[in-house]
Amino acid sequence: MKRHNFNSGPSILPQEVLEQAAKAIINFNDTGLSILEIGHRTEWFVSVIEEAKALVKELMQLGNEHEVLFLHGGATTQFMQVPMNLLDTNETAAYCDNGIWGSKAIKEASLFGNAVEAASSKDKNHTYINKSLHIPPESKYLHITTNNTVEGTQWHHYPNTNVPLVADMSSDIFSKQIDFKNFALIYAGAQKNMGAAGVNLVVVRKDILGKIKRPIPAIMDYRKHIEANSLLNTPPVFAIYTALLTLRWIKKEGGLAVMEKRSIEKANLLYSTIDALPAFTSHIAKEDRSLMNAVFFLRNPANETPFLELCKKEGMVGVKGYRTIGGVRVSMYNALPLESVHAIVDLMTEFSNKNA
Amino acid sequence: MKRHNFNSGPSILPQEVLEQAAKAIINFNDTGLSILEIGHRTEWFVSVIEEAKALVKELMQLGNEHEVLFLHGGATTQFMQVPMNLLDTNETAAYCDNGIWGSKAIKEASLFGNAVEAASSKDKNHTYINKSLHIPPESKYLHITTNNTVEGTQWHHYPNTNVPLVADMSSDIFSKQIDFKNFALIYAGAQKNMGAAGVNLVVVRKDILGKIKRPIPAIMDYRKHIEANSLLNTPPVFAIYTALLTLRWIKKEGGLAVMEKRSIEKANLLYSTIDALPAFTSHIAKEDRSLMNAVFFLRNPANETPFLELCKKEGMVGVKGYRTIGGVRVSMYNALPLESVHAIVDLMTEFSNKNA
Repeated sequence: MKRHNFNSGPSILPQEVLEQAAKAIINFNDTGLSILEIGHRTEWFVSVIEEAKALVKELMQLGNEHEVLFLHGGATTQFMQVPMNLLDTNETAAYCDNGIWGSKAIKEASLFGNAVEAASSKDKNHTYINKSLHIPPESKYLHITTNNTVEGTQWHHYPNTNVPLVADMSSDIFSKQIDFKNFALIYAGAQKNMGAAGVNLVVVRKDILGKIKRPIPAIMDYRKHIEANSLLNTPPVFAIYTALLTLRWIKKEGGLAVMEKRSIEKANLLYSTIDALPAFTSHIAKEDRSLMNAVFFLRNPANETPFLELCKKEGMVGVKGYRTIGGVRVSMYNALPLESVHAIVDLMTEFSNKNA
Repeated sequence: MKRHNFNSGPSILPQEVLEQAAKAIINFNDTGLSILEIGHRTEWFVSVIEEAKALVKELMQLGNEHEVLFLHGGATTQFMQVPMNLLDTNETAAYCDNGIWGSKAIKEASLFGNAVEAASSKDKNHTYINKSLHIPPESKYLHITTNNTVEGTQWHHYPNTNVPLVADMSSDIFSKQIDFKNFALIYAGAQKNMGAAGVNLVVVRKDILGKIKRPIPAIMDYRKHIEANSLLNTPPVFAIYTALLTLRWIKKEGGLAVMEKRSIEKANLLYSTIDALPAFTSHIAKEDRSLMNAVFFLRNPANETPFLELCKKEGMVGVKGYRTIGGVRVSMYNALPLESVHAIVDLMTEFSNKNA
């Protein structure tokens, strides 16, 4: 049966990336060795990491002010690592609380300094992006989550602020053209638009580092990773290689302009269907709807289970809403073909006609 | 050309593990999805992690006092995470400095509390294991590195002490039968005997946790990972799956008794050759020689480059000594076949006969 993979992450990857990754597990670049068996300091792997870094800079159109790192862990690791590197005990950082991941980031930052809420959309269950920001002028940085995977909202225009901008881009990185140089620090777990779980991309403007007094454990110190070219310790070799394959695919397909065009097309198709069909409803503010994760509900709650079961029967994976929210979530990352959105839209239409 | 993989880590894995891992990248367990594309909270992946945990407990013969975790990062992450969880600011922990990794562990621990040297073999460039331990009685734990990958030494009998024993087993885990229940905490980066880089195995006796006052960031808190069954955040899915495949292989081959028997046979063959041939010499104390990593030198330094080049020409990978030590290093992890040791022993004999 043909599967349609709407997983929220780990999520769908391009078929050719999977084929290349599988091949490298057996025989990496005709070395006769597996990518899992080669030393991380060999020229073989150093060329992998160099190419991956160069591709990130090219896709983001960044110069030498920014450094690209591939680090162990996921975004949750960065919730700790960002304040550990940027925020001294008696200093302030401003955080936007527009979703569950933003809330968690604030909680971790408060272990390191004074993390204040610049805005919150909790009043409406995070169904919109609160853009009225109150940023204490002494803030070391402003932290935003560019796309809220769980709630299905997304920043479409970033805040214009004087303090350094730090962004968790885990779930919409490389999905659109952005003025990346406006960000002081960007981080993203790889398992949505960039490859396999187990590696973080961190892009950091070097001038914001080295300004705090706290001693930082080596493995958490961005400066030590920069000095060591992401080879401070054994890095997550396979996850970095899969990121390289995915970055190559993005470039080959036409780069971020093409990813953005496809994302808009897929999201328009899905949201217009949700709006048109009487069986479905969305609680998300229209101007803040995520192009990556569409969160919606059955207007009649009794229809939810039958609809999710129908999806399962038809080979549609990962459409159940987040455990604390319920409903339906359809994730449309870069690798999801338009064909899959057509398939679920057809199913929704058929279901609505029968059950509305 | 047939390759012989003597890499020190990432290092050789069983061929069948590589084949199964490659297959799962395309189609995991006949789900029609890649292991890289499935949610970590699906029953598919939960059964992977449950089986991996059960196999660790079975191979280690551990009961319910210990918990098994699979965490992001490598041993360098644990250098920080262990003291962060176990050592309060004004408390003492004893560390053995018998090699470069032990030294690094002490340095990281000193950021969290009073890390004292219980013993050091620095006086002889770490060419032996100093077993004369001075452990302050108030120590929260004693930390040892069971095998020194860089220097080529190994503890063959563990210290008998009243304080909880913490061990970095990154480079000899699952290579021999050990009374694992004597350890309060064991950690190991996976990329030697256990699979792909990017995941740590942590085995911890629960009663040592929760005894410090320091607030611990969520992603670093062992208790939070125990509560969440290693699913606190998106774990390194593929690295955990590869660990499962390797654990299955170890069990199928006969378990730790068989791994130990093979290791002894391989190491005996190599060390007896080093001792017998005039061209080679070892500086390591005989009783402390590592069964995993044999570090040795050409008696005539001018022969080093020609020997390493001959190895390269004959398809032998990873035999160059560590960058700060030089010489030759031959790693003989579980997956290395005896045949590969025979191959390098034959080459050494031929080289010695021609050049001694």
